[in-house]
Amino acid sequence: MGRGVISRPMPDIAIQDTYPDDVAWCYGCGRLNDKGLHVRTIAAGDGYVATVVPRPEHTAIPGYVYGGLIASAIDCQSTGVASAAAHRAAGHEAGDGLAPRFLTGTLKVEYLRPTPIDAPMELRSRVLELKERKVTVATELLSGGVVCARGEAVAIRMPEGFPRR
Amino acid sequence: MGRGVISRPMPDIAIQDTYPDDVAWCYGCGRLNDKGLHVRTIAAGDGYVATVVPRPEHTAIPGYVYGGLIASAIDCQSTGVASAAAHRAAGHEAGDGLAPRFLTGTLKVEYLRPTPIDAPMELRSRVLELKERKVTVATELLSGGVVCARGEAVAIRMPEGFPRR
Repeated sequence: MGRGVISRPMPDIAIQDTYPDDVAWCYGCGRLNDKGLHVRTIAAGDGYVATVVPRPEHTAIPGYVYGGLIASAIDCQSTGVASAAAHRAAGHEAGDGLAPRFLTGTLKVEYLRPTPIDAPMELRSRVLELKERKVTVATELLSGGVVCARGEAVAIRMPEGFPRR
Repeated sequence: MGRGVISRPMPDIAIQDTYPDDVAWCYGCGRLNDKGLHVRTIAAGDGYVATVVPRPEHTAIPGYVYGGLIASAIDCQSTGVASAAAHRAAGHEAGDGLAPRFLTGTLKVEYLRPTPIDAPMELRSRVLELKERKVTVATELLSGGVVCARGEAVAIRMPEGFPRR
């Protein structure tokens, strides 16, 4: 073996991996929620991707995913993209400093065809508009390379002093 | 006690209670899905109501419900309302004959304020437009009497021969 530096690919860091513990419990995307979906939003070129694996109980009509899982995945992916994009606009990437947190303002989902339950759902997102307080995100949800749903969400920067209970 | 007929209130029948077994597995509203949310859509006046009780794991920011649960509840309530309304338009109520099944075409959710996790979410829906193949449903989601989210969905009548796997 040579003595040169061996380049090991770094594992991809998702923006949700970097949320502080007290805001890392979301059922959709919190890394600390052991019952949750664990949406992990990862930068890919000028967009962002995530993968969600449906569980057998996530059925609608047998064989297909229920619409709520698709909406949940697009929702959490959108707030993750907003966070990552705002962080990038401030000169940072995931893992480099503390990214701002976003909440969903509005969510639209268009269901194009039944989404199989026995395959991962791939989310591909891009930022349509980035403002200081508001980020608009478009997402395609694919299964087996076929677009099954489309989403658009407006994410709102979490206000200072957001109510904690 | 008199000998007159004693009127006992009938338990409310939800439209989902009447779905045939093979399409009663939906995570959002299927009565046979023991891990699901069990959205039950019940006629109330000229509208429809349902109640969903969040579980502790359905958190977003601690203390509040994650957006995906709200979208899931509105989604399944909307297809339930579409089914019940189409059934009513054909002269029937839930429990009287077989109601048509609907799938979600599009879903829009507007998140107005954080929704507490420790209280039932009440859904109040009305039909905006009823066509043979397509029903548009508006829903308000309340917690403690306060509207926390609004939804609008277009539900599409399930085509004959919908793919089964």
